Amino acid sequence: MVLQSKLPYLQVNKQVVRNNIERMLQKVRRSDTVFRPHFKTHQSREIATLFQDLGVDRITVSSLEMAFFFASAGFKDITVGIPVNFNQLADINRLAAQVQLNLVFSDVDTPAAKIEALRKNIRVYIEVDTGYKRSGIAVDKADEIETLHRKITSAGLEFAGFFSHFGNTYSAGSPQEILEIYRTSLQKLSALKDSYHTALSVGDTPSASLLDNFEGVDEIRPGNFVYYDLMQYRLGVCELQDIAAYVVASVIAKYPDRKELIVHAGAVHLSKEYLQEDDRKIFGKIARVENSLVTAIEPGASVISLSQEHGIIACSDEFFDKIRLYDNLAILPVHSCLTANLMKASTSFG
Amino acid sequence: MVLQSKLPYLQVNKQVVRNNIERMLQKVRRSDTVFRPHFKTHQSREIATLFQDLGVDRITVSSLEMAFFFASAGFKDITVGIPVNFNQLADINRLAAQVQLNLVFSDVDTPAAKIEALRKNIRVYIEVDTGYKRSGIAVDKADEIETLHRKITSAGLEFAGFFSHFGNTYSAGSPQEILEIYRTSLQKLSALKDSYHTALSVGDTPSASLLDNFEGVDEIRPGNFVYYDLMQYRLGVCELQDIAAYVVASVIAKYPDRKELIVHAGAVHLSKEYLQEDDRKIFGKIARVENSLVTAIEPGASVISLSQEHGIIACSDEFFDKIRLYDNLAILPVHSCLTANLMKASTSFG
Repeated sequence: MVLQSKLPYLQVNKQVVRNNIERMLQKVRRSDTVFRPHFKTHQSREIATLFQDLGVDRITVSSLEMAFFFASAGFKDITVGIPVNFNQLADINRLAAQVQLNLVFSDVDTPAAKIEALRKNIRVYIEVDTGYKRSGIAVDKADEIETLHRKITSAGLEFAGFFSHFGNTYSAGSPQEILEIYRTSLQKLSALKDSYHTALSVGDTPSASLLDNFEGVDEIRPGNFVYYDLMQYRLGVCELQDIAAYVVASVIAKYPDRKELIVHAGAVHLSKEYLQEDDRKIFGKIARVENSLVTAIEPGASVISLSQEHGIIACSDEFFDKIRLYDNLAILPVHSCLTANLMKASTSFG
Repeated sequence: MVLQSKLPYLQVNKQVVRNNIERMLQKVRRSDTVFRPHFKTHQSREIATLFQDLGVDRITVSSLEMAFFFASAGFKDITVGIPVNFNQLADINRLAAQVQLNLVFSDVDTPAAKIEALRKNIRVYIEVDTGYKRSGIAVDKADEIETLHRKITSAGLEFAGFFSHFGNTYSAGSPQEILEIYRTSLQKLSALKDSYHTALSVGDTPSASLLDNFEGVDEIRPGNFVYYDLMQYRLGVCELQDIAAYVVASVIAKYPDRKELIVHAGAVHLSKEYLQEDDRKIFGKIARVENSLVTAIEPGASVISLSQEHGIIACSDEFFDKIRLYDNLAILPVHSCLTANLMKASTSFG
């Protein structure tokens, strides 16, 4: 049974999303780079359609499940941007029978017998790590890269190029530092690109948002930029008005002694991702909103605690006094990818 | 399209769940206390059926949406254990036409006109805060409690008693401290119970797990105890074999230089809830498992980082060497409520 009054919910401003996409598209066109946005952020047919309307038909996802989902939404060229899981070989080949599927190999020991068993239309990237230290072969391990490259070509598969995620930009202290990480990382990859005469696929939201063009890069895969969030705003890579998604939640209790509001929005809505602010963890901020456009952050209000469904908002006297019981607040998420994933079934696109 | 090889997934051992429920039931019967378990932890028809088979038919949930879900699963007496949201008045009354609905009032300013508009079969608890400082009227505010009580009875609604969640037990340093918080909190509530000749409804998993019986308490509402997790194990309130749920995830890359494994299990599977261990955040531990029963925690392995779909496991040399690429690991969640919520569509009950 569906609630008539679904609360909390995620409000997405489609016009802001469209602007965010178009801005990225313009920059991509300047350097003739392939735009293969990461769809893990929104996981939504609604947002997928916006991309399709703008002519974007090559995408990245972070699981085979998402790949099947977007294949059924009409996408015919899909990269699964996580190290291949050969426990899912049958599903991989089944999907490759429907779409141009591109996989990522990130371990030199990826077994040759499994690679041989892949459907021959699959294209394969080698993931290279330039310093983030998540997945990927360390960029200086030329021998491992060569071994893996040989396994791919020996199996008769097309080598798609080198794949890298400069995730260390997320912990940079300034836009300058983000660009510095980008340039250093790209430099490390350029020698590989040259010696293999192949493509480079990169693209985290922080650097992709700051750059004017993507010279030297053949493909970018940012994801978060469709919605942005507090983390990106704090990194200095988006404007407040670029934040396209916030959680609408009701104030369900007010405690004047503590100057705290309780909202029905918890860890199962916002996620427990936080930002450090002085000695406090911040799980969200309250936005001023006009026609579902974010115009300001309330200076006197922060989400300081989340349990499963309760959120606690610490307030200035002024903010506390102006908010009434059952007011609906707009809460900016710290990390919109995680929030959008949690709110998939409760999103309002406007 | 459904994957043939759904990975990662949450494995739930139903026999362990049944044991956890029966243990709690035995203690509840000793003191003739009503058992109204919190279903937010599992949100599952499968686990709900286990409770029904054991004769448990009164439940707690943390949202109106969950209340509708379990009403459709046959439950006829449901408490929504979060401060009432009068923006959902129409839905509340619609649900109350189907089941015995019990609501929680947590703010003295809950508007009389809204209370009057509630369906008259609804029972109402007053939430009292004994020190957790989330929601509830502070236990020493006798005047506020009296005002709210008068509003409830004036509206012709049945007063169900005092409702409290001793959530501060979760941050206790020892089982002794948990019991101390429980006793102190209960003491604060006893005077209220006596002067209103009414019922007390309490029940967090830490104290409910440690107590032998619930003397002086009319109703308990623990939730997490069905699955338990690393947090409860560390608090000392469950045994390792009581942990009924873990995430099964594949090793998708191995990096010998860093002694780190990459698993396909991230923040959208485990949640970003963590435990502090020395100077590291721990998002999960690897379990040894026999017939889906947890028998030990691997001493040399911890999930130290999560992005959306990747997890990084830091390993001892020994653990690193014994694990092979594409092995499936059993990852114990830090907080099973959040993990089970994320994995609702990917749970295997065995």
